[in-house]
Amino acid sequence: MNLQNITITLSETKKEKPQSDQLEFGKVFTDHMFIMDFSTGLGWHDPRIVPYQPITMDPASMIFHYGQSVFEGLKAYQTDDGRVLLFRPEKNFRRLNQSNDRLCIPELDEEFVLEALKKLIEVEREWIPSAEGTSLYIRPFIISTEPFLGVHPSSSYKFMIILSPVGSYYKEGIHPVKIAVESKYVRAVNGGTGTAKTGGNYAASLKAQEVSEKIGYSQVLWLDGVEKKYIEEVGSMNVFFKINGEVITPALNGSILEGVTRTSIIELLKHWNVPVTERKISMDDVRQAYLDGTLEEAFGTGTAAVISPIGEFFWNDEKLVINDGKTGELSKKLFDTLTGIQTGKLADPLGWVVEVSKENTFSVAR
Amino acid sequence: MNLQNITITLSETKKEKPQSDQLEFGKVFTDHMFIMDFSTGLGWHDPRIVPYQPITMDPASMIFHYGQSVFEGLKAYQTDDGRVLLFRPEKNFRRLNQSNDRLCIPELDEEFVLEALKKLIEVEREWIPSAEGTSLYIRPFIISTEPFLGVHPSSSYKFMIILSPVGSYYKEGIHPVKIAVESKYVRAVNGGTGTAKTGGNYAASLKAQEVSEKIGYSQVLWLDGVEKKYIEEVGSMNVFFKINGEVITPALNGSILEGVTRTSIIELLKHWNVPVTERKISMDDVRQAYLDGTLEEAFGTGTAAVISPIGEFFWNDEKLVINDGKTGELSKKLFDTLTGIQTGKLADPLGWVVEVSKENTFSVAR
Ligand SMILES: Cc1ncc(COP(=O)(O)O)c(C=O)c1O
Ligand SMILES: Cc1ncc(COP(=O)(O)O)c(C=O)c1O
Repeated sequence: MNLQNITITLSETKKEKPQSDQLEFGKVFTDHMFIMDFSTGLGWHDPRIVPYQPITMDPASMIFHYGQSVFEGLKAYQTDDGRVLLFRPEKNFRRLNQSNDRLCIPELDEEFVLEALKKLIEVEREWIPSAEGTSLYIRPFIISTEPFLGVHPSSSYKFMIILSPVGSYYKEGIHPVKIAVESKYVRAVNGGTGTAKTGGNYAASLKAQEVSEKIGYSQVLWLDGVEKKYIEEVGSMNVFFKINGEVITPALNGSILEGVTRTSIIELLKHWNVPVTERKISMDDVRQAYLDGTLEEAFGTGTAAVISPIGEFFWNDEKLVINDGKTGELSKKLFDTLTGIQTGKLADPLGWVVEVSKENTFSVAR
Repeated sequence: MNLQNITITLSETKKEKPQSDQLEFGKVFTDHMFIMDFSTGLGWHDPRIVPYQPITMDPASMIFHYGQSVFEGLKAYQTDDGRVLLFRPEKNFRRLNQSNDRLCIPELDEEFVLEALKKLIEVEREWIPSAEGTSLYIRPFIISTEPFLGVHPSSSYKFMIILSPVGSYYKEGIHPVKIAVESKYVRAVNGGTGTAKTGGNYAASLKAQEVSEKIGYSQVLWLDGVEKKYIEEVGSMNVFFKINGEVITPALNGSILEGVTRTSIIELLKHWNVPVTERKISMDDVRQAYLDGTLEEAFGTGTAAVISPIGEFFWNDEKLVINDGKTGELSKKLFDTLTGIQTGKLADPLGWVVEVSKENTFSVAR
């Protein structure tokens, strides 16, 4: 499949775009979306850009019953000189295919869908906000559509990309969050679906999130599902600790999602010659470092917030306050560097950003 | 809410009903369905029976991204004297609410939805097949519909009931299945969502199922997610073993689904004074009993097959053949008794069946 196969139907009306300072996360969607269908025999087919609109689904569609689905999340940024940048988008489509494999969903042509995404972004060019901290959030996802109640991989799917202009994650500048360590509920376990971005993982996380919010904590820290000792992730972010000068993040163990931000931070720290280690780390280790006075910083990492400094852990009725509840130096430096690279304000030493070109020509069907 | 609130819109056309002997599981749906909406503020509202039809969903609907959903499965049976029976339906709606609690979905009025189901079945009376082994499969389910990409409980939902006439699970009489013991993938873990009927559990199970089918086994046996030693379930069924005269099923441990068939079998065995125990049982225990010659029978239990005798386990390259690969005496007796009670052919000593009455009157909106 190549770009020429994509048909484009432009919307007759255009929605009003929200003000830069009133952007919320994931509530407003742009005028168009990309869709492509899969059916056994035909494979992936009929790629098209169409007006953003409701889809029609049989009530027996598998996604409603057996949750066979995957998704991705990334962002497009506008530079000061008007270019549009994506941050390592090939990694997201690579991960989407890894999720597909775990969920028995047919593989996508990664190069093609990246080109399709670029084309969609060009169509929605005016939707990319430019104020500090804003971006265009990109949500590629696949849902199973076969109307059949047997527990089997679906024979038909829809792959879609929708776009949402989003505001700064930190309305009042980067600031630390308070995290409750979750000791009852589990996000994922080795042999489960934790390494995939699939709906069920997020559905499973809602309850713990609800409980932690009730006691005044904005996210939970997930422990491993086997011993409930080792640290896995924070909310829907990966997590890092700076202990005695060394930066540590839990090793990929079969239940942790391999975040693009996580990978980039590890690479950046290595580039800076800062010691960084991927290993098993327990909540006991973190508490011991806290008691020893060597727990210097902790932060979550993910596409939405980029870096989310952690000011406090609540664990077994004890509060571990980190760096006086203030944003640490390394957290701040990583945040500034990553967002600087993403928005084209800083040089891109490791070759991460991909420019959305304007040179493609394509057929427009109306 | 009461029955008078349900509006009914009858379909103008009627689909052709499949022949009794050509019924498959979950592929054909009846002419009507039940829907009710939830939104914050209004609560559950607008209960209605309408023609079976596609639903329209925003592409950002939470179900497509974060899998917040629950479902149930039960059956309606036609008796020889033309009555319609449900088997312990209150247990399914109780369990649906337990699933709701785990998935942060608002509670349903269990009595009301059972009445709504009865009304729907009356409308679809002609769809209930009557041949031996056939029934009307009932699928109540809830999906999250808020168009928002934040990971939070949805503010709106749809509860629906769809119906599908299904054939005999055993086209050539009850017969044993071959089961592969799964040692890589995990279905559920304590603290996860295993006790709830939610899509993500089934999505997670597809891969193991696919692998086992490739090596010639029709279902997998799930081990616990922590030690991968203890037996949890078989496919989407609970599992029982008869060892040296004692019937054993894994105790509910926080990751096993509490099957209605499982509960009924335990109660029936107690009623018969057959020793039955709910306890932890490992695959090693089962193999030891097999070696000792005391492993008399094994069977899965669930609404679809009722009893599914197990003829062989494949574990660590070893085949454990049970009862010469034939259906055991107890398996057969339980199957005959349960299906006999369900279809009104046998007396109902424990008061399990619920008759769908024909006395309700209701408003018809066209
Ligand atoms: C569970 C989970 N962990 C970690 C991440 C961070 O991944 P990334 O850095 O690719 O955004 C995400 C979200 O994106 C996530 O959903
Ligand atoms: C995972 C799982 N376990 C067990 C069962 C058996 O439950 P029941 O006897 O209520 O049908 C089911 C299905 O119904 C199931 O999905």
